[in-house]
Amino acid sequence: MLQFTIQNTDPTGARAGTVRARGQAFDTPAFLPVATQASVKALSQEEISQLGAQIVLGNAYHLYLRPGVDLVRGAGGLGQFMSWAGATLTDSGGYQIFSLAPLIEVSDDGVSFRSHIDGSEHLLTPEGAIEIQHAIGADIIMAFDQPVGYPADGEAVRAATLRSDAWAARCLSAHEKAPDQALFGIVQGGFDPELRRESAHRLAAMNFDGYAVGGLSVGEPKEQTFGLLAATAPLLPAARPRYLMGVGKPAEIVRAVLHGIDMFDCVLPTRLGRNGTAYTWLGKINLKNARYEDDLQPLDPDCRCRVCIRYSRAYLRHLYKAGEILAARCLSYHNLNLYLRLMERIRKAILENDYEEFAQEFLSARDDNDIAHHT
Amino acid sequence: MLQFTIQNTDPTGARAGTVRARGQAFDTPAFLPVATQASVKALSQEEISQLGAQIVLGNAYHLYLRPGVDLVRGAGGLGQFMSWAGATLTDSGGYQIFSLAPLIEVSDDGVSFRSHIDGSEHLLTPEGAIEIQHAIGADIIMAFDQPVGYPADGEAVRAATLRSDAWAARCLSAHEKAPDQALFGIVQGGFDPELRRESAHRLAAMNFDGYAVGGLSVGEPKEQTFGLLAATAPLLPAARPRYLMGVGKPAEIVRAVLHGIDMFDCVLPTRLGRNGTAYTWLGKINLKNARYEDDLQPLDPDCRCRVCIRYSRAYLRHLYKAGEILAARCLSYHNLNLYLRLMERIRKAILENDYEEFAQEFLSARDDNDIAHHT
Repeated sequence: MLQFTIQNTDPTGARAGTVRARGQAFDTPAFLPVATQASVKALSQEEISQLGAQIVLGNAYHLYLRPGVDLVRGAGGLGQFMSWAGATLTDSGGYQIFSLAPLIEVSDDGVSFRSHIDGSEHLLTPEGAIEIQHAIGADIIMAFDQPVGYPADGEAVRAATLRSDAWAARCLSAHEKAPDQALFGIVQGGFDPELRRESAHRLAAMNFDGYAVGGLSVGEPKEQTFGLLAATAPLLPAARPRYLMGVGKPAEIVRAVLHGIDMFDCVLPTRLGRNGTAYTWLGKINLKNARYEDDLQPLDPDCRCRVCIRYSRAYLRHLYKAGEILAARCLSYHNLNLYLRLMERIRKAILENDYEEFAQEFLSARDDNDIAHHT
Repeated sequence: MLQFTIQNTDPTGARAGTVRARGQAFDTPAFLPVATQASVKALSQEEISQLGAQIVLGNAYHLYLRPGVDLVRGAGGLGQFMSWAGATLTDSGGYQIFSLAPLIEVSDDGVSFRSHIDGSEHLLTPEGAIEIQHAIGADIIMAFDQPVGYPADGEAVRAATLRSDAWAARCLSAHEKAPDQALFGIVQGGFDPELRRESAHRLAAMNFDGYAVGGLSVGEPKEQTFGLLAATAPLLPAARPRYLMGVGKPAEIVRAVLHGIDMFDCVLPTRLGRNGTAYTWLGKINLKNARYEDDLQPLDPDCRCRVCIRYSRAYLRHLYKAGEILAARCLSYHNLNLYLRLMERIRKAILENDYEEFAQEFLSARDDNDIAHHT
């Protein structure tokens, strides 16, 4: 079971609250570092805790294939297995099956697929996906859905959306046995606002502990993402947390909070970090650029994280070019710090009823696609 | 300049002391974590400091090629560049040129070689190697030598040894300009005890701040290594620190200390860590082995390091198999902890005049080539 307390709703509709589940708590709006395989890539649990993360996101598809649910359950569940004392959430793996695995067949019953690791055959049904997530034991688990890619044929999207919504109901029934974990439904509907609204209405009529918006930010134009979000978010029960899955860049998070979104996850801070890119408060810098070769400044002169206190751009660029693991560690740490500090600033602005000004200022000062200009 | 204070010489000849150089100090016998490219692989400077390392080893050949000596000098020298507050030592790169670089030509003047990174041509002389190490600015620097591989032709070894010893004298002359850094000579002589003795005598007659034994543990049988060490070490000035380069496994370090060696370096703790192998007090365990699949014990039940307090073998094995960076981090950290705790135990036993018993007990309890039996 899950409790969601809203401390304040700002005039923009942005909400600041606290989610409680199984003795765990996290403040919202929350960013969930991504620990797909039970590890936030390049970082240690000690570090993500020091950075202030309160909840991490694992992936049931990945953990089911490797190391297997019996091991995770035997170790006491995901949190104990990875020695993470905070809250945990698992994605059901629908998105990963449809994006990573060589598919065999989709029917109303479920999905047959081959493992992307060893080619072995598997059948996953909504009931099976819930059973797997019960075994993995995260505090919050997700319904099993069928996302669609962008662009997508209208009839195919309608069929996938109807199927996802029917699967959501089956997940809810399958979950009755283990009510101590919280279960979120996932709104689909592709890129058609009407289909999105229908899906949101159907899911809102079911008694989920929270509601996710899935299948966005998969390649569609950014303005379409926010149009679809605007069509969907207001239809989701206001008393339950809302989770925009897989989103996004800092500016996207700031914008989505305006639509009343409470939870986010994204691989960007760690993925970009491994690829030599650091976020700053004004944009991104790419250490591969020769301009940083003898730059003895910290990654972000406005940052006080352990990396910026200690290491220079020139040193980190050297580590990156020399293939040293410490480069990935430092950039991932710094980037995740920026995300988590951003969430604190967002929350503070909402609590002060000042979110509109905060968002405007933030969005005008930076462009997530641009190189920072203060270098 | 360098000060070496010997606190105690145990009845076995093992010495416990302190080396001071340019305001830095480290206790001996010392293990130097290897930071070839200005990073101890997979670890942060904060971690190696927490683990108790007092000095790290960089490599002039690698740093000269990348990122280049101007950058390191401009950043304030190796320690400042990598933000490491402890002592630093650079190897001259002789060993790396002869093992990594496509050689062009060796003459009495120096070595022409191509960069293993971009194929560019370089000429390195003894004077040049010292100049590079002055620019890199480590507290202790090494003479430029010509090691030989195993096995080696007798005449070739004699020629390389004579050349190395002549180069050592040239390094000493070239070093007169920058006396604040300490300079160590390196005894060569291949696998012939007589040649080793000759080289040791010649170097001992020169006024080096310390003496290294080079070119051992390069493939020769282990008993030969220790025979050559026994022939060499007693000839080195007792008042100066003695450094056995590139050695070794824990049991080899314990044995070499019996010959009065004070300093060691080795890539094994981090290299084995990246390859899924953990040291324990009784031997090694390889996490690739299926027996650890659901083993919820720590890596070493007798270890109190941060990794052993927090993570299980089963979790670390999963991380290794899933290709997660955290596996390399945790195993490297744990292994380096074992090396540094071993050096503390060695030092304590010497100070208590108890080293013979310590060494016998340690060497009978474990075999570095064997899997630990206490699993």
